[in-house]
Amino acid sequence: MVASTETAGIERQLAHYRDLTYDALLGQLPTREPRRYLYDLIAGQLSHAGKGLRPALCIATCRAFGGSTEQALPSAVSIELLHNAFLVHDDIEDGSLYRRNEAALYVEEGVPIALNVGDAMNVLSIGSLIENIPVLGADLSYRVFHEAQHLILQSVEGQALELGWTRDNVVDLTEDDYLRVVLKKTCWYTAIHPCRIGALIGTAGAVDADRFNLFGFLLGAAFQIQDDVLNLIGDQGRYGKEILGDIWEGKRTLMLVHALRECTADEREELRRVFSVGRDRRTERDVDWVFRLFQRHGSIDFARAALRQVVHAAQDEFDDAYRDAPGVADRDFIRRLIPYLGDREV
Amino acid sequence: MVASTETAGIERQLAHYRDLTYDALLGQLPTREPRRYLYDLIAGQLSHAGKGLRPALCIATCRAFGGSTEQALPSAVSIELLHNAFLVHDDIEDGSLYRRNEAALYVEEGVPIALNVGDAMNVLSIGSLIENIPVLGADLSYRVFHEAQHLILQSVEGQALELGWTRDNVVDLTEDDYLRVVLKKTCWYTAIHPCRIGALIGTAGAVDADRFNLFGFLLGAAFQIQDDVLNLIGDQGRYGKEILGDIWEGKRTLMLVHALRECTADEREELRRVFSVGRDRRTERDVDWVFRLFQRHGSIDFARAALRQVVHAAQDEFDDAYRDAPGVADRDFIRRLIPYLGDREV
Repeated sequence: MVASTETAGIERQLAHYRDLTYDALLGQLPTREPRRYLYDLIAGQLSHAGKGLRPALCIATCRAFGGSTEQALPSAVSIELLHNAFLVHDDIEDGSLYRRNEAALYVEEGVPIALNVGDAMNVLSIGSLIENIPVLGADLSYRVFHEAQHLILQSVEGQALELGWTRDNVVDLTEDDYLRVVLKKTCWYTAIHPCRIGALIGTAGAVDADRFNLFGFLLGAAFQIQDDVLNLIGDQGRYGKEILGDIWEGKRTLMLVHALRECTADEREELRRVFSVGRDRRTERDVDWVFRLFQRHGSIDFARAALRQVVHAAQDEFDDAYRDAPGVADRDFIRRLIPYLGDREV
Repeated sequence: MVASTETAGIERQLAHYRDLTYDALLGQLPTREPRRYLYDLIAGQLSHAGKGLRPALCIATCRAFGGSTEQALPSAVSIELLHNAFLVHDDIEDGSLYRRNEAALYVEEGVPIALNVGDAMNVLSIGSLIENIPVLGADLSYRVFHEAQHLILQSVEGQALELGWTRDNVVDLTEDDYLRVVLKKTCWYTAIHPCRIGALIGTAGAVDADRFNLFGFLLGAAFQIQDDVLNLIGDQGRYGKEILGDIWEGKRTLMLVHALRECTADEREELRRVFSVGRDRRTERDVDWVFRLFQRHGSIDFARAALRQVVHAAQDEFDDAYRDAPGVADRDFIRRLIPYLGDREV
């Protein structure tokens, strides 16, 4: 367990970068009509800010590599808006009921309006990059746009695999399959992209951005595995999403992949049956049975052990990826983020 | 009725520009994994090409103002991909069952995967503009990106209004409200944007793009009103969508706005009742009743008369907007498109 004063310090720094990002972000949202069916809903979504991990990584990496907060801010705004757009569409796709302790947007407003709100947030996220062209110049902007497109394609590719496996009830999956989807749908936009963009801006394009790929993969994987664990045994009030929601939604988590490998043929048949129907036809008894199966086969302990390994590997990779970053304070903040993300309760 | 040799000539030119666009578009689609849940579905959507009106307007306007097909092609590709992304999301939002004589994508693949496919097509459409940066240079690219963002925001704003009115069963709408939504959700991306972008590229940024706004509005309105009419009395095989689908979906069309104004208090109450429930609870009897109400109050004739006025106004505005365009053949093609679009059966 990370000491609580250490946790408080990290969360204070996260909140600082998050608040800077949200001030800029909310300041550039359109305030015109249509408010009721569009812009008020976007403002409402953004009023429940998350941890701000992605903008913090982007700004801190930019500063660690010699850049300024101001240079990174438009990209940080873009990443955070994109993240929130993802969440609006993801909740529709996954059938998730809660987000940040509120009903998911599509539950409140219906799928059509929520889908359109996500589309609007996506295009607004690009707007922030357009406005950044005069700041960064044409060459660096061209690279930033490429990076953004690559990240979004990685995300939709990962999402396509996960949604396909859930829909078609694919059960012959390995840890490698799980990590491939996590790399695409979580790591790229949660960690790899913010680090790459931050360093590109901080060094005016001089850094080889690929040096962050492995570190970002490991950091993002730690984030996702802890998310899978919290979904099973977290505190709903702190976590903000439905506990056991992943089982209700039929998500292919690390625990499920482990249990599928370890379980008996009969249990595997029962798992296949439970996940063969949609969320609305799954019962509380089914969900409890899956949870107890995870416990019986040690799948949660397995995920926690994998998480510890990933955190250690991320710490090693950090030393390499940030080896010559001159900004000591921000470099130190990112280093301390690694165990924090593997141990977070929110 | 436009003479059939004239129609054939216009359709040949449309097909020429469309085919150029689709060759370029299909050539740059990713062919990597995941195919089954993503890239094969995109290719499938794009294998049923529409008329290609939007890329044709973009390329022809660029050529009319002195530019080349090659210069306009990346923007034409971008517009056509964006259009197809819109259709995938729109069909989910509207609950439309058919598109281009096939089941809508979400009907075949489910909402989650279809929504994600639309997101992927949206980001691919931006990719074409990114690759265009070296061709157009930084300054013109900056303007093109701004234009693209503006158009997408107009579209989502129009969509937000229409979806909101449908969901909340808003019936106190006027022709002005209808035209405001048509301007935002149809005219910008069907006509105004392709003309603006084509002329900006053709003149290397020298033209005042606002000169196309009124022409594009009128051309787009003609297109939409004819679409409303075809939805009621078209030939399903040629039109490719469900006849009377707009009534099933509760769309606020020009006929509905007219009928709401002309009908008796009792009829208005009945209209409100019919549209107070979702598509799945509307009956064939309800839909027939609305169609006969439109006939009884002359709402279809009203729409056709409005269409003729809009076509005439578009012809006048064309003469102004394209007054000094040196490319005679393409200018002439666009001029002949105007009555064609107001009279089309597909």
